[in-house]
Amino acid sequence: MFKKLALIGIGLIGSSIARAVRTHDLAATIAISTRRPETLAEAEALGLGDCYTLSAAEAVRDADLVILCTPVGAYGAVMAEIAGALAPGAILSDVGSVKGYVQKVLGPLVPAGVHLIPAHPIAGTEHSGPSAGFVELFIGRWCVLTPLPSVDAVAVDRLTSFWGVLGSNVEVMDAEHHDRVLAITSHVPHLIAYNIVGTVADLEAATKSEVIKFSASGFRDFTRIAASDPVMWRDVFLTNRDAVLDMLGRFLEDLSQLQRHVRNGDGPAMEALFTRTRAIRRSIITAGQETAAPDFGRPHAAEPMVEVNVEPSVPVREHGGGDDA
Amino acid sequence: MFKKLALIGIGLIGSSIARAVRTHDLAATIAISTRRPETLAEAEALGLGDCYTLSAAEAVRDADLVILCTPVGAYGAVMAEIAGALAPGAILSDVGSVKGYVQKVLGPLVPAGVHLIPAHPIAGTEHSGPSAGFVELFIGRWCVLTPLPSVDAVAVDRLTSFWGVLGSNVEVMDAEHHDRVLAITSHVPHLIAYNIVGTVADLEAATKSEVIKFSASGFRDFTRIAASDPVMWRDVFLTNRDAVLDMLGRFLEDLSQLQRHVRNGDGPAMEALFTRTRAIRRSIITAGQETAAPDFGRPHAAEPMVEVNVEPSVPVREHGGGDDA
Repeated sequence: MFKKLALIGIGLIGSSIARAVRTHDLAATIAISTRRPETLAEAEALGLGDCYTLSAAEAVRDADLVILCTPVGAYGAVMAEIAGALAPGAILSDVGSVKGYVQKVLGPLVPAGVHLIPAHPIAGTEHSGPSAGFVELFIGRWCVLTPLPSVDAVAVDRLTSFWGVLGSNVEVMDAEHHDRVLAITSHVPHLIAYNIVGTVADLEAATKSEVIKFSASGFRDFTRIAASDPVMWRDVFLTNRDAVLDMLGRFLEDLSQLQRHVRNGDGPAMEALFTRTRAIRRSIITAGQETAAPDFGRPHAAEPMVEVNVEPSVPVREHGGGDDA
Repeated sequence: MFKKLALIGIGLIGSSIARAVRTHDLAATIAISTRRPETLAEAEALGLGDCYTLSAAEAVRDADLVILCTPVGAYGAVMAEIAGALAPGAILSDVGSVKGYVQKVLGPLVPAGVHLIPAHPIAGTEHSGPSAGFVELFIGRWCVLTPLPSVDAVAVDRLTSFWGVLGSNVEVMDAEHHDRVLAITSHVPHLIAYNIVGTVADLEAATKSEVIKFSASGFRDFTRIAASDPVMWRDVFLTNRDAVLDMLGRFLEDLSQLQRHVRNGDGPAMEALFTRTRAIRRSIITAGQETAAPDFGRPHAAEPMVEVNVEPSVPVREHGGGDDA
């Protein structure tokens, strides 16, 4: 499908793309570039590509598909480096969780003849780094493309086919709409999860250790997305501020009302809300975006989970992270 | 271990206890009582007990272990019915998520010679009803007992052994402390999850359907606990109001600060918080209370999940619900 794919950044998402492209034979050559030598060495040891370089400009040379897979805050610096090396006719895309900012920072620097098609595969896990990726990550998930209306339709079709082969359903929308929908679907949930886990982290040590002990009663669900890549998420909140603050405002208005119901002991109002929310989960399961298995299908082991699972040590990385969800 | 176990209420928790008691042969007779005839018929069809009755008083007659497994709001009515029928020497326990209220409502009605030992098995799924239970539910999970210091130590030891055989680690603490710890570990997380799912439920239809579509980007994690039993959770917030409002206050103070960081574009402050929260998840995994598998071990199916999973239809039930987590 493509002669040469260049992946700039090789975290969870970048490495999953590399694996899936190899599996489906979608590119003759996969070039991988990332800023940190350790990450590049890890990608090479995993055999994710055909050539490896610390120079993004070198990676994109002659590539007909370039995908930025770094945190969005690094796009400006990456683009300054690669703009002069992009091949005419190439598709320039990305996997960032915000799209308006991407258009704003990349758009003015795109050379004539290069097709900028920002993309957001809505898939991920809480793990980061080249070893966290896997071929199946995008299967059954949505991938949103946000090209300007002026972008070449043939190029958009090619990228749509690409994500289709990776297993995704593709939807095209405008960047601003994407950012509003993702603010409530993804960004505010992450903000809230980070916040409550932070509240627990600030408790006195004795109480904190009890919260950890009894976390199966609800709290642990929040800790998964609050374990997502810190730099990636910092950049999301720096670059989608207005939509996040607007949706957070709605959440807080609703929470004030619910807080009042608790204070007043308004049982019927609470029961009505708690009944209404069940329908949303059923819709998500029906839409194929969630498992119907109880407890997300978490193992209920015959032995305590600590004996059968070992947390992979995932260092906090400053660059080359992928998209977490 | 016991001559006769009486389970009043036979939802997720009650039915899991029934199954585990049968598996481990912990009681010669299991008597099941619940308020709704349909639920009782369902329990009987599942073969969960040895005798089935709509009369709680009849169920507890001659029982040496009685466990209330209804929403806590029903305890007053249940206790009024059974108080005169409790056998001398019996242990009276429960599985409710709040403990101070339980002592307050049951304590004054306990006949002399009956040992009141409130309990809270910290285990559950988002599903409800007799068919949702399973033998392994309590394995590796904590069960908190909150007897008054004056309660017979031998009775506490017997109940501790009982939960130990079911696979739980048992901890004894005072009820007020339990309610404070669970407020932040369980009650506030549920409140927040219900609230954000409610915010989405209130969005205009077009946006709501997009949130459902793209929910794998974070939102869907919240919908699990927001699908928990509405009546059970109404009762939690009606009966642990002060601790919930206090912990919610802490959460909101922290959220105001984080909101300000977003507004000011304070990247370093956000990155510092998002890095700190990772450690909490690692602690929970190390404590054996969470799986280390990415994405909770959710299936990444070769086909969209909608084709392989069917949501069991779980009607909203007014009584006989168990403990959700």
